[in-house]
Amino acid sequence: MFEFTLTATDGRARAGVFRTPHGDLKTPVFAPVGTQATVKTLSPAQVAELGASLVLSNTYHLYLRPGDELVREMGGLHNFMQWPNPMLTDSGGFQVFSLSQTRKVDEDGVTFKSHIDGSMHRFTPERSIQIQNNLGADIIMAFDECADPNNHAYIKKAMERTHRWAERSLAAHSRADQALFGIVQGGVDPALRTVSAEFISSLPFPGIAIGGLSVGETKDEMHTTLDVVTPILPENKPRYLMGVGTPEDLINGIARGVDIFDCVLPTRLARHHAAFSPEGRLNMMNATFARDSRPLDETCDCYTCRTFTRAYIRHLIVAKELLAGTLLSIHNLHTMINLVNDMRTAIIDGTFNDKVESWLAQWRGNAEREKKPATESHSRSDS
Amino acid sequence: MFEFTLTATDGRARAGVFRTPHGDLKTPVFAPVGTQATVKTLSPAQVAELGASLVLSNTYHLYLRPGDELVREMGGLHNFMQWPNPMLTDSGGFQVFSLSQTRKVDEDGVTFKSHIDGSMHRFTPERSIQIQNNLGADIIMAFDECADPNNHAYIKKAMERTHRWAERSLAAHSRADQALFGIVQGGVDPALRTVSAEFISSLPFPGIAIGGLSVGETKDEMHTTLDVVTPILPENKPRYLMGVGTPEDLINGIARGVDIFDCVLPTRLARHHAAFSPEGRLNMMNATFARDSRPLDETCDCYTCRTFTRAYIRHLIVAKELLAGTLLSIHNLHTMINLVNDMRTAIIDGTFNDKVESWLAQWRGNAEREKKPATESHSRSDS
Repeated sequence: MFEFTLTATDGRARAGVFRTPHGDLKTPVFAPVGTQATVKTLSPAQVAELGASLVLSNTYHLYLRPGDELVREMGGLHNFMQWPNPMLTDSGGFQVFSLSQTRKVDEDGVTFKSHIDGSMHRFTPERSIQIQNNLGADIIMAFDECADPNNHAYIKKAMERTHRWAERSLAAHSRADQALFGIVQGGVDPALRTVSAEFISSLPFPGIAIGGLSVGETKDEMHTTLDVVTPILPENKPRYLMGVGTPEDLINGIARGVDIFDCVLPTRLARHHAAFSPEGRLNMMNATFARDSRPLDETCDCYTCRTFTRAYIRHLIVAKELLAGTLLSIHNLHTMINLVNDMRTAIIDGTFNDKVESWLAQWRGNAEREKKPATESHSRSDS
Repeated sequence: MFEFTLTATDGRARAGVFRTPHGDLKTPVFAPVGTQATVKTLSPAQVAELGASLVLSNTYHLYLRPGDELVREMGGLHNFMQWPNPMLTDSGGFQVFSLSQTRKVDEDGVTFKSHIDGSMHRFTPERSIQIQNNLGADIIMAFDECADPNNHAYIKKAMERTHRWAERSLAAHSRADQALFGIVQGGVDPALRTVSAEFISSLPFPGIAIGGLSVGETKDEMHTTLDVVTPILPENKPRYLMGVGTPEDLINGIARGVDIFDCVLPTRLARHHAAFSPEGRLNMMNATFARDSRPLDETCDCYTCRTFTRAYIRHLIVAKELLAGTLLSIHNLHTMINLVNDMRTAIIDGTFNDKVESWLAQWRGNAEREKKPATESHSRSDS
């Protein structure tokens, strides 16, 4: 179980297969986010049809509603939401720090107020793992502390605490059918990232996540951090870059040896009327599309692009019809998944490094990242 | 084109086939409502998968947004919304009388204010037919005046005007690939209904609609009116009972010789968390369903019931996830369509009259009709 096999490499880019109880995951892979046990506006049949293989769900949200005990009684998350393929849950840590109204961190854990009803709750590494054991995803995360990247003094403290919590998460984990990943922290400080990557690599995690990125740092800082971290990580374990990102971020991440990605961007942009395209990000509310009989992207073969015109999608947006969000979500997710699949094929064919610049040029127009700081971005849960 | 063939009858109940440019319509048939060129929350692939064969769209809404000329430029309604099977549009008359903020009726037509932006517009029989010619549905409706059933003096005047407008609608109609149906009016007055059924039957319409019902009259009045009207109508033309209704209404309508139905109820109830079931209408927000691992209806084979528990659907509702509306719409529409299919099979088998009482008993718990008067009910457009 949880064997990771490298199929091919091209430079630092890797193509592999990660074996899970719900099927083999071909990497690199992009995971749609189903925060509340649903990828917003899509049925699981639609999520499968658009080509997704891994879905992420958020522990913080499911713990609060409907509750992890209820999900366990209903046969676990796969059964509850009827997603038959691999799943991943985060630890809840990021949401506690970014979403909950107030929180108090101590060495043992975090006390926080629910963003739903203001009730008080407490997560510790042991509690997060217990909740994730109840939810039952194939890949689960150690409980970590994600600190503001601009607060250097605190970054070190948070990293050291994350390391102690990683050991406690490992000790608390009780299900052999779930792979617990450790998380590398350390902000954008190369020295701290080195320490963290070495420490987390030394623990018996079957996979390693890179946390604390896509939280307000620059693109250059993200790339430099990946350049420091991924060479330290063991070759034989999958690497997961949490909460990232845009099409451009995926290209840059894969070029630097990342295997797993997730982001709310495709579905959130869809609900804000935006479509990924090689022409750049399209605002489909725009009146120029009113009589445009082309698909969103003439090179795309998703259900939306095979079936509907830009004119129809704009009409749905103007008329406030929910189908607009569904059709744009299908397209945006398919675009990300298809791009990653193309990169996987190129890695296997040995053409990845030849193509990487043209992909970057093609997708740069979609690459604006949201500028909000981590505490407001909610970038890892889709709500 | 538009040949109607009776396959079988059982008492007054009829099973037939209506030939249209987009395929043969097996009757009796229940049409989901796609007011703004979309059956709310569903993709056309989902609408087809749940078993729908005919979809209704609203002329008033499409005229205002995106405009019938735009729909024509985009290849007509079938192409615009990518519904490949038969479609029906109403005349816009009902919405002008029920939705628009103010209106002024005269012999020539109706001037009204848009409910969207307050702009002034005018429908006449000629204009309604021109708009419906632009939209391009297989079945279109004569422009009629639907009057308050309790205003007896006015009912007669509105009926007579409807008759003159029926002749003008016929004269204005220009597309041989669209079947224009006449509309019988006359409130709940048997004498007026007789006059209207005879007059509309005398005109060369390929099908006949029964209007002015499900607008605030009692069930008994609806049944009595059908008992007066359908025996007068020609056997060789399909009969369409507009804007009706509940499962019970469909059973009663088919027993009285109706062939075509449409109603917003299944999709509107879905968005208000209600599910049709043989146990009666279920409010899926109810806490009793929180840990209920059964499907909505154990006898139903729709995607929702084959796949999801009541507990999951309740979670989606509580978490305000749009997928709840999608899954409930699929179930409620499938229930109506499946019930009508079962009745069609029984008519062909000659067992309809044996089964009608047990169907009525089974579905009575879902039969509460909304009590609002016609001018507030919006019951023929799903918004």
